[in-house]
Amino acid sequence: MQPPLRNLIFRHNVSSLAIKKMSSPTSTVEPLNAVEDRYGGVRVDLVEEHMDCDVYVPRLKASISQWRQQGVKGVWMKLPIRHAHLVEPTVKEGFRYHHAESDYLMLVYWIPETPDTLPANASHTVGIGAFVMNNNREVLVVQEKSGAFGAKGVWKFPTGVANQGEDIWTAAIREVKEETGIDTEFVEILAFRQTHKTFCGKSDLFFVCMLRPLSFEINKQDSEIKAAQWMPIEEYMAQPYIQGHESFKYVAEICSGQSKSSCSGFCAVPTLSTSGKKSYTYFNKLQLQN
Amino acid sequence: MQPPLRNLIFRHNVSSLAIKKMSSPTSTVEPLNAVEDRYGGVRVDLVEEHMDCDVYVPRLKASISQWRQQGVKGVWMKLPIRHAHLVEPTVKEGFRYHHAESDYLMLVYWIPETPDTLPANASHTVGIGAFVMNNNREVLVVQEKSGAFGAKGVWKFPTGVANQGEDIWTAAIREVKEETGIDTEFVEILAFRQTHKTFCGKSDLFFVCMLRPLSFEINKQDSEIKAAQWMPIEEYMAQPYIQGHESFKYVAEICSGQSKSSCSGFCAVPTLSTSGKKSYTYFNKLQLQN
Repeated sequence: MQPPLRNLIFRHNVSSLAIKKMSSPTSTVEPLNAVEDRYGGVRVDLVEEHMDCDVYVPRLKASISQWRQQGVKGVWMKLPIRHAHLVEPTVKEGFRYHHAESDYLMLVYWIPETPDTLPANASHTVGIGAFVMNNNREVLVVQEKSGAFGAKGVWKFPTGVANQGEDIWTAAIREVKEETGIDTEFVEILAFRQTHKTFCGKSDLFFVCMLRPLSFEINKQDSEIKAAQWMPIEEYMAQPYIQGHESFKYVAEICSGQSKSSCSGFCAVPTLSTSGKKSYTYFNKLQLQN
Repeated sequence: MQPPLRNLIFRHNVSSLAIKKMSSPTSTVEPLNAVEDRYGGVRVDLVEEHMDCDVYVPRLKASISQWRQQGVKGVWMKLPIRHAHLVEPTVKEGFRYHHAESDYLMLVYWIPETPDTLPANASHTVGIGAFVMNNNREVLVVQEKSGAFGAKGVWKFPTGVANQGEDIWTAAIREVKEETGIDTEFVEILAFRQTHKTFCGKSDLFFVCMLRPLSFEINKQDSEIKAAQWMPIEEYMAQPYIQGHESFKYVAEICSGQSKSSCSGFCAVPTLSTSGKKSYTYFNKLQLQN
């Protein structure tokens, strides 16, 4: 184990810029507050409201020198967007970008000479499509106001993007409720599609969820949805756009074949890890009865 | 349709900083090169080798003013890491971060007063675990050198992270080859797990892939793998770690029940979109025979 790095005070051969700010020629520069991670690295979360470059840079240099001596591997630097002025000096010290969210940029620096084993950035968005059929074999469909589907007048399943941290099955129920006002319960995932280079080089996983309707009166959302209706599934399937898109055609055929008793898709089973972390595991329950 | 935005020259009430750089009091500032996207927005890709702040800022201000007049919605600004000095001035003009990769930062600015409908950042990493069983009901397992599994001495399926743009089934075959030297072919996805807050608030989708072995002599990778072997599946399942982790236990039971003839998981079916884009759609083929 490395010694705790938090709040260590460290003598360092600081830059001339930093020396100007210091009161005595032998004064110390306080390294940045860092916490160790489980992989031999450290993480700096710059929580200060403000920090000037000429304070930050000598502290960063002192920290890197210290981390190198201690054999630290990866250094994570989380800069809130209010510290945008510190991005350039951080890059100048050898950091690269790792990922960003609206309000922060994460930079990384791999100190050793060995190959970088830092975890990858998120690579996929997750979308859902909802297959909701009533007892008359009518399927819940919408027409969108904009986008490629809206322009073509296609009647499509309610779809959407899973929010950060949202389960697939929850996202499907939410999107149906938002777009059509219909209450549903999740049955199973019938299929999913992986597509690459969908946006800025990222990939997308799109899950087709079968939901059972619990209400039937449509109350459509006005901002994005032009129209919503219950449509005979044969009519949905006959649309040229569905027939012309192999993935949609397979999914339509799968949906059309669904009876209430079948379970040939993947159900969502709540599961606990040894450490007590909750997640959902999706699989065909029939597999447990083999 | 908006007029093309590329290479328009535009008169603008520029800042005093910019005026200092210009030769005459009535000179023009060239807006940044921008291309329109399909959603009423524009994208700026700052390909120049170098650009000084006092050139960039007036051009950005001129561009924003022009875009506002033209009714542009979202503005995407891609700043290569060599332009780290332009991050702060971009944020000062109202941009926020959208995402980042090693070598660039993408910033966005939503100009209208209406709610921002910009697409979400990627939210998930994608991992794979490979279930490979020979005709003696022995499963291919490895012990890792580091990490939580390595420390506990758990024998586990070969696992890994899908590379950017890599298909799930391809990633599974690659990881088995890399870790154990065994050649395989993809059969189906038996299950997957969605876990949240795995890393920096992101989520993970982990797909358990069944692969059929095409070779049997193990040639393990040295850098990350301590040991690899064919192990009777009952012995694999009996490990306390597998029994203590609900998701692993379900997966082990599913794997144990697999016979060569079953197809209760999701196969990978190559599919083409109407525009000719290739992707894989995963589903239970039995669903098409209902």
